[in-house]
Amino acid sequence: FSSKLPDVGTSIFSVMTQLAQDHGAINLAQGFPDFDPPQNLTDALVRHAGAAGQQQYAPMPGLLRLRELISQKTAALYHVPAPDPATNITITSGATEGLYAVLAATVRPGDEVLVLEPAYDLYGPAIRLQGGTPVYVPLCLPSFRPDWDQVAARLTPRTRLVLLNTPHNPSGAVLTTQDFDTLAGLLENTDTLVLSDEVYEHLVFDGQAHRSVLQHPALAARAFVLSSFGKTYHATGWKVGYCIAPALLTAEVRRVHQFLTFSVSTPTQHALADVLADADHYRELPAFYQQKRDLFAELLRGTGFELLPAAGAYFLLARYAALAPQEPDTEFAQRLTREAGVAVVPVSAFYHDGRDEGLIRFCFAKRSETLQEAALRLHAFS
Amino acid sequence: FSSKLPDVGTSIFSVMTQLAQDHGAINLAQGFPDFDPPQNLTDALVRHAGAAGQQQYAPMPGLLRLRELISQKTAALYHVPAPDPATNITITSGATEGLYAVLAATVRPGDEVLVLEPAYDLYGPAIRLQGGTPVYVPLCLPSFRPDWDQVAARLTPRTRLVLLNTPHNPSGAVLTTQDFDTLAGLLENTDTLVLSDEVYEHLVFDGQAHRSVLQHPALAARAFVLSSFGKTYHATGWKVGYCIAPALLTAEVRRVHQFLTFSVSTPTQHALADVLADADHYRELPAFYQQKRDLFAELLRGTGFELLPAAGAYFLLARYAALAPQEPDTEFAQRLTREAGVAVVPVSAFYHDGRDEGLIRFCFAKRSETLQEAALRLHAFS
Ligand SMILES: CSCCC(=O)C(=O)O
Ligand SMILES: CSCCC(=O)C(=O)O
Repeated sequence: FSSKLPDVGTSIFSVMTQLAQDHGAINLAQGFPDFDPPQNLTDALVRHAGAAGQQQYAPMPGLLRLRELISQKTAALYHVPAPDPATNITITSGATEGLYAVLAATVRPGDEVLVLEPAYDLYGPAIRLQGGTPVYVPLCLPSFRPDWDQVAARLTPRTRLVLLNTPHNPSGAVLTTQDFDTLAGLLENTDTLVLSDEVYEHLVFDGQAHRSVLQHPALAARAFVLSSFGKTYHATGWKVGYCIAPALLTAEVRRVHQFLTFSVSTPTQHALADVLADADHYRELPAFYQQKRDLFAELLRGTGFELLPAAGAYFLLARYAALAPQEPDTEFAQRLTREAGVAVVPVSAFYHDGRDEGLIRFCFAKRSETLQEAALRLHAFS
Repeated sequence: FSSKLPDVGTSIFSVMTQLAQDHGAINLAQGFPDFDPPQNLTDALVRHAGAAGQQQYAPMPGLLRLRELISQKTAALYHVPAPDPATNITITSGATEGLYAVLAATVRPGDEVLVLEPAYDLYGPAIRLQGGTPVYVPLCLPSFRPDWDQVAARLTPRTRLVLLNTPHNPSGAVLTTQDFDTLAGLLENTDTLVLSDEVYEHLVFDGQAHRSVLQHPALAARAFVLSSFGKTYHATGWKVGYCIAPALLTAEVRRVHQFLTFSVSTPTQHALADVLADADHYRELPAFYQQKRDLFAELLRGTGFELLPAAGAYFLLARYAALAPQEPDTEFAQRLTREAGVAVVPVSAFYHDGRDEGLIRFCFAKRSETLQEAALRLHAFS
């Protein structure tokens, strides 16, 4: 038996989570909160899980009520015309399915997809599974900002998509209106589309606001914008995301979605719809997570970990050169898991060629006690 | 913008469900029960939806506890060696995602996939999305049995997969051990794999038992077997299925699954695990559904609909020649929805070339009152 699949192993998040479990380590590797969703949301799922008549297939594009609420929320939050629930919004099994559906719907064999690196580990393999070629452009360290000249240099008539991710995983860097202007200029008079992964849209700190591609009309006209409820509602296990796109592009996504998963859990969609109008929740999120970011940074003072600034998302990158100047990041991450009892992700896992910048990623979406215990262990290790 | 996608419209099930809603028709088109899952299952979801620590990502291959229970159930039910939860079982977002993952994992551009028609409407497009070519072999009407000589004639070195579906949607026909023997003989010394869609495994009537490909060692060694909880637990909206396959094949499915959806709803998997050991539920299913099949058949007596026998699944096919001898089945199905107030699926939707056998499909997974009301309307129409 010979595999047709791109030569990729198990996702780094599964690998490090397994290693954490094997060694009783605190899992700051895989990105998920170690606390529960808001009570009003779990109460809503309790209600709908027991509700008569809500346990069969949802409509293929998603519950209309949920799409309507997403439309209203999007318009209010980003001051944009409300996306049409009927033609612009599709509910997916997490942003992951949304991403795969967009790629399967748009990437022809031989097409190129421009990816800024470091990048979420599934982008490259998912592109290659469609017969596409990921074209990687490194972000500039330590700011993790795009070098648009380099992007311009790599755009070709074969570039089907440019993949954006803001706030950025793993660095937390955010794109600006100026970034969007520049990119829009580059894409003018091309057929290149944009896929913008904005699952951390509500996690932007220090008084900044998330800039969505939806707010940039020229880009939005050619963009698939992905989001997810997992991050916003501390419910990564619920697997509900969505894709907002112009009608023509939405039609393509749905044609794939109907064959990929067809529809998403009905009671879960009802539950999310029940709480979506409560804007207080996500208005409070930045402060909630910023406090965790700052606490963890404070707690790590005096260890050998040098943290990089993070404008958004729920990760902190750290240089460990002071602790292990020569050690490859993969080895260091594994050793930290085993010896310190704190699991992290080596940033090389976000580079297609395993480029090693001597960085590891901590997820700080954890209770204070967890962050404190992790910090204790990291001090002991340092 | 030019689409890369195979020229397929919206799934017939969405189309007919929409038409049913537009006309206030009883929806006997899309296959789903109009009653709720067993109380112990919805109770279990209520419990886990509110449970602390169960709302984050499930492991990528599925909750271990659920996989263990599937393993035990499979061994007990089919008298086969227990599949290894670690290497043989993967939980997917419904059998739909399982099917797509298998195709994406195995079908190379130019590969052929043998499909017996009529076939579930997503098989063909999902194959073509991988760059594969569906090779269609018609089942013999009115028995809907495979003509294995025709299958043999269409097998080539490019045949990557043979797709089976037993019990069969839309006809309810079931495959036998002899069918498996014949197919195994044909596939000996080839690299051709088998994908067996067995989502209706518990719905086999008249004292017969479902024969699973898992019970045929020669086929099982090269097979992906798909099942789903949606049909077995009257919970089509929960979207949890699974794939059982040899370790080598499971590894391939997971490599795709991790990029397609990564994981499946955690509280939902917990809930299913809680009830899976209760074998009474699925032991009673055949009688439960057979009673509905027989009731509906009885109720339709004296109408112009000539029902075909159905050995399994929850559909009945009907000839309507006595009512509209010349009318194409698509038109007849739409007219029935509008004029009789009963939505059905035209069987031509299950043929890639729209072959019209003058058949429509009724879903009888409905409460007695619903079947009675539908029958009243069909009598009035006749
Ligand atoms: C799907 S597991 C990965 C979670 C995540 O987004 C991350 O850790 O970056
Ligand atoms: C996913 S909607 C289709 C339901 C079904 O299995 C059928 O009606 O055949």
